[in-house]
Amino acid sequence: MAKKVLIVGGVAGGASAAARLRRLDEEAQIILFERGEYISFANCGLPYYLSGIIAERESLLVQTVQGMTERFNIDIRVNSEVTKIDREKKVVEVFSQGGSYKESYDYLILSPGAEPLRPPIPGIDRDKVFTLRNMSDVDQIKAYLLAEKPQKTAVIGGGYIGIEMAENLSHAGLEVTLVEAAEHILAPFDREMARMIEKVLLDHGLQLIVNDKVQKISHRYEADNRKVIELQSGSTIEVDCIIVAAGIKPDSRLAKEAGLSLGQGDAIAVDAFLQTSDPFIYAIGDAIEVQDFVSGTRGIMPLAGPANKQGRIAADNICGRKRIYEGTQGTSIIKVFDYTAAATGNNERKLRQEGIPYIKSYTQSNSHAEYYPNATTLTIKLLFTPDDGKILGAQIVGKEGVDKRIDVLATAIRQGLNVYDLEELELAYAPPYSSAKDPVNMAGFVATNILRRDVKIKHWEELSQLQQEEITLLDVRTNLEYRQGHIEGALHIPVDRLRKSFTKIPKNRKVIVYCKAGLRAYLACRILEHHGYEAYNLSGGYDIYLADRH
Amino acid sequence: MAKKVLIVGGVAGGASAAARLRRLDEEAQIILFERGEYISFANCGLPYYLSGIIAERESLLVQTVQGMTERFNIDIRVNSEVTKIDREKKVVEVFSQGGSYKESYDYLILSPGAEPLRPPIPGIDRDKVFTLRNMSDVDQIKAYLLAEKPQKTAVIGGGYIGIEMAENLSHAGLEVTLVEAAEHILAPFDREMARMIEKVLLDHGLQLIVNDKVQKISHRYEADNRKVIELQSGSTIEVDCIIVAAGIKPDSRLAKEAGLSLGQGDAIAVDAFLQTSDPFIYAIGDAIEVQDFVSGTRGIMPLAGPANKQGRIAADNICGRKRIYEGTQGTSIIKVFDYTAAATGNNERKLRQEGIPYIKSYTQSNSHAEYYPNATTLTIKLLFTPDDGKILGAQIVGKEGVDKRIDVLATAIRQGLNVYDLEELELAYAPPYSSAKDPVNMAGFVATNILRRDVKIKHWEELSQLQQEEITLLDVRTNLEYRQGHIEGALHIPVDRLRKSFTKIPKNRKVIVYCKAGLRAYLACRILEHHGYEAYNLSGGYDIYLADRH
Ligand SMILES: Cc1cc2nc3c(=O)[nH]c(=O)nc-3n(C[C@H](O)[C@H](O)[C@H](O)COP(=O)(O)OP(=O)(O)OC[C@H]3O[C@@H](n4cnc5c(N)ncnc54)[C@H](O)[C@@H]3O)c2cc1C
Ligand SMILES: Cc1cc2nc3c(=O)[nH]c(=O)nc-3n(C[C@H](O)[C@H](O)[C@H](O)COP(=O)(O)OP(=O)(O)OC[C@H]3O[C@@H](n4cnc5c(N)ncnc54)[C@H](O)[C@@H]3O)c2cc1C
Ligand SMILES: CC(C)(COP(=O)(O)OP(=O)(O)OC[C@H]1O[C@@H](n2cnc3c(N)ncnc32)[C@H](O)[C@@H]1OP(=O)(O)O)[C@@H](O)C(=O)NCCC(=O)NCCS
Ligand SMILES: CC(C)(COP(=O)(O)OP(=O)(O)OC[C@H]1O[C@@H](n2cnc3c(N)ncnc32)[C@H](O)[C@@H]1OP(=O)(O)O)[C@@H](O)C(=O)NCCC(=O)NCCS
Repeated sequence: MAKKVLIVGGVAGGASAAARLRRLDEEAQIILFERGEYISFANCGLPYYLSGIIAERESLLVQTVQGMTERFNIDIRVNSEVTKIDREKKVVEVFSQGGSYKESYDYLILSPGAEPLRPPIPGIDRDKVFTLRNMSDVDQIKAYLLAEKPQKTAVIGGGYIGIEMAENLSHAGLEVTLVEAAEHILAPFDREMARMIEKVLLDHGLQLIVNDKVQKISHRYEADNRKVIELQSGSTIEVDCIIVAAGIKPDSRLAKEAGLSLGQGDAIAVDAFLQTSDPFIYAIGDAIEVQDFVSGTRGIMPLAGPANKQGRIAADNICGRKRIYEGTQGTSIIKVFDYTAAATGNNERKLRQEGIPYIKSYTQSNSHAEYYPNATTLTIKLLFTPDDGKILGAQIVGKEGVDKRIDVLATAIRQGLNVYDLEELELAYAPPYSSAKDPVNMAGFVATNILRRDVKIKHWEELSQLQQEEITLLDVRTNLEYRQGHIEGALHIPVDRLRKSFTKIPKNRKVIVYCKAGLRAYLACRILEHHGYEAYNLSGGYDIYLADRH
Repeated sequence: MAKKVLIVGGVAGGASAAARLRRLDEEAQIILFERGEYISFANCGLPYYLSGIIAERESLLVQTVQGMTERFNIDIRVNSEVTKIDREKKVVEVFSQGGSYKESYDYLILSPGAEPLRPPIPGIDRDKVFTLRNMSDVDQIKAYLLAEKPQKTAVIGGGYIGIEMAENLSHAGLEVTLVEAAEHILAPFDREMARMIEKVLLDHGLQLIVNDKVQKISHRYEADNRKVIELQSGSTIEVDCIIVAAGIKPDSRLAKEAGLSLGQGDAIAVDAFLQTSDPFIYAIGDAIEVQDFVSGTRGIMPLAGPANKQGRIAADNICGRKRIYEGTQGTSIIKVFDYTAAATGNNERKLRQEGIPYIKSYTQSNSHAEYYPNATTLTIKLLFTPDDGKILGAQIVGKEGVDKRIDVLATAIRQGLNVYDLEELELAYAPPYSSAKDPVNMAGFVATNILRRDVKIKHWEELSQLQQEEITLLDVRTNLEYRQGHIEGALHIPVDRLRKSFTKIPKNRKVIVYCKAGLRAYLACRILEHHGYEAYNLSGGYDIYLADRH
């Protein structure tokens, strides 16, 4: 007999599961329940619709109820909320058009997504304090922007969605203040890398407040109708409206009430087959707890790629094909004005937290051959194990070609490659696209040089500690670079004069060498070591040193 | 005692080897011989300088003699040709400034590159028939363009350099005819993929002649000073100048005369350590025979990335670090006006030649989310083994994001991944960069569907054969698409109406289904199979069918 599959949630995970189910099983009875009015919309495009970068609302609707019904012969029920699961009877309760009814299932797929968090801040639940998750959210904000033409806004939260909102509202002509409680924006990145993006925001005229918490929101209805945000630090911000992008919470209410096992942060617990603690119920997407591919720990990683893939895998499993979801590595990317920031795998914070030993390295490369027009610089941070150089994580910031390099590194992590493998990758080179040694090769060279002990390194955060000792800090950049700014107390000898200048460098002290990004300092270290010095490359050079203190 | 290393050739391989040698060994005596006037120039940038896209001649000089000398303490001798190797005595003979001298070595690195081929065509050795390899070549052509303002040119050879020349000379205002002797341009690609690039050339106003050989070049010195190219077909082309880009020949004269073993096409034979048949002589770059990473066969693969990496490896080996060069997979890329074409691994021609069994699949994807502005289509062709799906090769053509996907696939090939691995790659997604299912994932889905026998396929080249049998050719595109063009004799039922139209399709015949690119035909096949039909997806759809016959 044909199986009957119910799906809760009709967007990234749910719609993907439905389509795949139908492709695998033409007979199955498939019913898709969506609480909202739309299925298959582009959550990820919502911020861009607010600025008009995505001009047409319709283009956000990747599939429609009619289109999907015709193509996949699926019974799609929008404005229909599944309110209860009776696991015993294998029946759900659906609330729709003012009434409720029951629907039985053989299998149930939960893809209810997540809800934007609204931290318990006094005043946060009032008008003109928006969150953004779905079409109705975006319609509300768009209507408000058009009707009231606000001038100032604050975005609370400097994660991906917060920054996308900040940028797009700025494009829409608003003055934007971004408030982040943590010490830097963009939690998937480490501080020094996130600082580069903070600088981009500032350069584009946004106000940025980090390391400060919103305490209270007051609403001046009588006077100018403005909102006043009070921060822990005591400062205040006056705005016309507020966007709260303070993270999300897995929408696991249904699952919880049905007694399914939950994991971290109340996300729905699933096994490697994406099966919940009930073998007839699968769960996917933002609502579930996933295994971190790198560290093996469990947590939430709400991303569209994984949601789509999980939908496909759950469908496969329901149709009797045993397929495993291998975990999420957190590959993610964001456009920030003319910059791109991308990350994959674990960052330093995570590695420290889990007690995983690591080494980090930095490289700066041109997005493509320098001699071909419009090359820009990208900075790659690589994290790898000290023993075998297994790649644990990568973060990249730059204008062009960031997405390409993060995808290569994401592939490398997925396959358990080490930094030695990066040396050998044969990537496509012609002047408009890359260099004969691709930035990923270069990152591999630099990392393996550290592992092979061809160069010793120190990090910018060790510098103040080191400066307590009797060290020589050596700047090997050009005269011009040195004059434009250098680290206090540095001795200056351009690398190309180093071989003739040993007398200037005390022999019995450690030499910490720096240049702009590390290349020349590496050359200098090799020369110094050969002449009996104990030399260290200040990893990432002056640029990373500066980035971290901007 | 410090070792003495001589290097023949001061550009991609040679200069890289020199720099690495110095980094590994501050003591070594390193002498770099370069026959020409310049070292370290950007061969790959030369065509772009002719059009002015690269505006400054200086920017082609990546390193200068002075810069490299100062930085690396290398004895650089330009205008110095190594004319002989005395392996017995470990001495080379150098011709410079009208005289000759000898120089001894402990190790010798040969990176002499290659010479442009001039096929034995009558008239090819006369004036205004140019080849392009180095600075002096480019200076000659540039000077000629400026002085004589030619109007018409022909490029002989439709490989990477030929096409780059054709494009850049067209940008420079010349009317260009590209002549290719083979049945299609761009030998690293298969015909149907190359056809897409041929179309781009035609769309940009170039004349293109394929499958025709140049027989003779006549020079009308008395009359209008034009050159007349006579083709095998009988047709003629009148031009002001000619660029010969008919491939290259490894420059192995020195090696040959010294009695070193040679391989295919007289390339210098080396082992995995890049050592020639003489243990004190290493050879790298365009001059050597390399192992094809995929098929294991040996041949020449003249590319800058490999040359640079080989330089680094040869230096490592000379310094006592045993490092292996694992072979070249032929990852390559070209910009053709607003398009990009890229390839990695083996193509069909090569696989057939080597008798390696393979399956091919095609996908079309958006370069990034369709709903975000400026998404363009890219076509991916994937070649993989029929048993375990190991990836053998990939070819991509499109406007944006081609370089990214080829690099991911190049990484996959380098690591021996199969198409099942592609399904699981977690690549970076935000609307400006990709889709939740990246084009590489999608290529993986389609390939694995074939391997898992979820869909049967036929190829456009089997169609005429198939049409001899009693088959049903079924077009499942929209009415509009069908009206705009379809395959002769096709029955037309849009996919979304298929479930209601079985009566129109004879039961006892094979059904060959096609849509634009394969997605809807795949859905149709799944439906048809379920209803007892023997259905096949016409792989790559109408677009590949058309591409091949343009
Ligand atoms: C503004 C924004 C930008 C984003 N940008 C990116 C990006 O660039 N890259 C990226 O990887 N990810 C991005 N994401 C995250 C991505 O959209 C999610 O990871 C993905 O949509 C998760 O899919 P899902 O199926 O779990 O949840 P959703 O896509 O949210 O779908 C869940 C659906 O279930 C419905 N539902 C919930 N409970 C019930 C119920 N009881 N009955 C019926 N229906 C119910 C909800 O109404 C909702 O429509 C973004 C998200 C947002 C909000
Ligand atoms: C126009 C053009 C465009 C290209 N575009 C690309 C591209 O986009 N991507 C890509 O990957 N590759 C490209 N290539 C190929 C790439 O440039 C070569 O693969 C690479 O330069 C090979 O390095 P090599 O050291 O072997 O040879 P070369 O870089 O050619 O260096 C060899 C040098 O050795 C010198 N020499 C030879 N014999 C002697 C001797 N006896 N004594 C002294 N000196 C000697 C020569 O004068 C020459 O300068 C392009 C090449 C050309 C010509
Ligand atoms: C210019 C040229 C001599 C440079 O050679 P090179 O010094 O080996 O290359 P780079 O300048 O890229 O430097 C790479 C080195 O710097 C190191 N490096 C790069 N960035 C670094 C950083 N941030 N920190 C520490 N080290 C760094 C790398 O590890 C590598 O050293 P290694 O090989 O010892 O590991 C050579 O590439 C050349 O001649 N190029 C032009 C010719 C050519 O390639 N033509 C064909 C293409 S157009
Ligand atoms: C629209 C939606 C329902 C489509 O789901 P889908 O049908 O699984 O996805 P696609 O349309 O990309 O089609 C993929 C299928 O076509 C197949 N396919 C693609 N190109 C093909 C080709 N050229 N030849 C043959 N098959 C092809 C794939 O193999 C895959 O099938 P499979 O899963 O059975 O292997 C779903 O992606 C969705 O709802 N998206 C919007 C919501 C969303 O994702 N939001 C978050 C991001 S903004």
